[in-house]
Amino acid sequence: MNALRYENQNLSVVNLPKPSAGGEAIVRVTLSGICNTDLEIARGYAGFEGTLGHEFVGVLESLPEKSEARVPARASQGIEPSPNAPPEAGLLKPGQRVVGEINAGCGFCELCLASDPRHCPRRTVLGIVERDGAHAEFLKLPLANLLSVPDEIPDERAVFTEPLAAACGILERAPITESTRVAIIGDGKLGLLCAQVLATTGARLVLFGKHPHNLAIVARRGIETITIDKSKTRKREFDVVVEASGSPTGFDLALELLHPRGVLLLKSTFHGATNVDMARVVVDEISVVGSRCGRFAPALELLKTGAVDVESLISEEFALTDGVRAMERASDAGVLKVLLRP
Amino acid sequence: MNALRYENQNLSVVNLPKPSAGGEAIVRVTLSGICNTDLEIARGYAGFEGTLGHEFVGVLESLPEKSEARVPARASQGIEPSPNAPPEAGLLKPGQRVVGEINAGCGFCELCLASDPRHCPRRTVLGIVERDGAHAEFLKLPLANLLSVPDEIPDERAVFTEPLAAACGILERAPITESTRVAIIGDGKLGLLCAQVLATTGARLVLFGKHPHNLAIVARRGIETITIDKSKTRKREFDVVVEASGSPTGFDLALELLHPRGVLLLKSTFHGATNVDMARVVVDEISVVGSRCGRFAPALELLKTGAVDVESLISEEFALTDGVRAMERASDAGVLKVLLRP
Repeated sequence: MNALRYENQNLSVVNLPKPSAGGEAIVRVTLSGICNTDLEIARGYAGFEGTLGHEFVGVLESLPEKSEARVPARASQGIEPSPNAPPEAGLLKPGQRVVGEINAGCGFCELCLASDPRHCPRRTVLGIVERDGAHAEFLKLPLANLLSVPDEIPDERAVFTEPLAAACGILERAPITESTRVAIIGDGKLGLLCAQVLATTGARLVLFGKHPHNLAIVARRGIETITIDKSKTRKREFDVVVEASGSPTGFDLALELLHPRGVLLLKSTFHGATNVDMARVVVDEISVVGSRCGRFAPALELLKTGAVDVESLISEEFALTDGVRAMERASDAGVLKVLLRP
Repeated sequence: MNALRYENQNLSVVNLPKPSAGGEAIVRVTLSGICNTDLEIARGYAGFEGTLGHEFVGVLESLPEKSEARVPARASQGIEPSPNAPPEAGLLKPGQRVVGEINAGCGFCELCLASDPRHCPRRTVLGIVERDGAHAEFLKLPLANLLSVPDEIPDERAVFTEPLAAACGILERAPITESTRVAIIGDGKLGLLCAQVLATTGARLVLFGKHPHNLAIVARRGIETITIDKSKTRKREFDVVVEASGSPTGFDLALELLHPRGVLLLKSTFHGATNVDMARVVVDEISVVGSRCGRFAPALELLKTGAVDVESLISEEFALTDGVRAMERASDAGVLKVLLRP
């Protein structure tokens, strides 16, 4: 099968054997999305080598081989599944369309037993940590990671489940209600998803960006937008600022927009060390809160009801065999989601 | 009167006229304490010029002159005093021993109306922002900032009210209970106060430091201590880490000690920009929480009951006229609190 891989400081599409199931499910990928994390990995910043990609939709090809299937820890220990566990896990059949949560835990630690492997210290992560990813014809994941995709959601929307779940993850980390004044910095694909998710809370929202075309996507949905060069008029106005630009200057701007005791939600990773005005964090008693992966179930619900416009975020689609060119395109300024079709 | 001042990049004890009351109370200082913030100011890092010092105990010399006294905003607007308002304010009489909260608000903004001027955007701060400080024979402060000192607390303990309140401020910013695993980094005066305040919660506490003499002060009170070179054995063990070392390396160590979704409480200010591994904050979903000033009332209660040993933190006392030498002494490694007596 074809797979887009980063190995020996080189990005290329290579031919590999189809993965063997063992204790996991095999998924035939129908569409995958390029994330900024993929671009960082391909720049050598993340220490990962292997098949890239963690955003996908596909078709369940085969269930785990029974003899090797790992007994779910909660079953073996008589623990009830958490209410957060994907409801469809265990009911899936080959041929069903699926998306997949990207963290695969050890299955036996305290976090995994609570059905949340996102911080399992021995986890692997699809296309990011010690696990081949989704920019390939096939991938494998634990069956418990997969969720079926409702018929109402076409592949072109379902492929956004993972980044949309990451945007939903903000709500796990910061108290946001109708009366919260929220700023989002960055009008890339992550910022646009965050803005739309936060709009569902009724919060008083402003998106700061620099690409008129991108700002227009959420402005059409009634979200206030403003270009970053005009940010000086909004200093110290916000209770929560979501940094989704991936730029270190976004951090400084966030500190300017927050009032004392505000929350700076860090949604995007910066590579390497960042120069930060920590005195300001102390004097203004700011909370800087990291946020990474979210749950898939709320994201699928948003995609099903159409509460979030993801189609407008698709900049271009490439064949998987054109993966290297697709990655170049994804790194151009102002480009939003680039999709790969195996 | 004599005052220890930083002006034109020069630290010296100078003779000044006694301050005139106007709308504020005058306090005759009996003892003041040198804080690391004073040292930072004297290095030119904080942009303040004037009389240094914000930790003091004194005797109320005179009340505000009535004709100029500012009408408390809450009274003029028919708003009830907050339950957090210093209970003794308004009942003070000349001759009483007093300590004073250091933030003087505008009196009219939303925060000041709620009796919490600590983040008033137009505040002045004793010896730190546009207000002459406590290393002087006399100082002035709004009457509402002053609290009377119970007879049980001698001056040598009362002078610790401000830094002890800052340590108590941690409890406003992080949820800490008996089951919380807390690490404190730094065995300077701030770290030792933080450790003792947190010990009153029953939390599972470890203080990381490098001065055996300093660690022994809290070890005597049953707090676990460990030298920083042995910190590798305690990685990812803690729910909350309090950074009180004032060193940028303390931030990196804190990230190592925290488990995912832990809270890094920043208690000390670093001057200038700090290089921070923000990717770690995002991937491990850490909350970095700034904490500055605390309330005086809980600190006075701790001093009254003797729940905290502050006397052992006194390294040396100097006459105010020897203030420059005292500041030099306070910056020596391992030295704890240096006091000034006018």
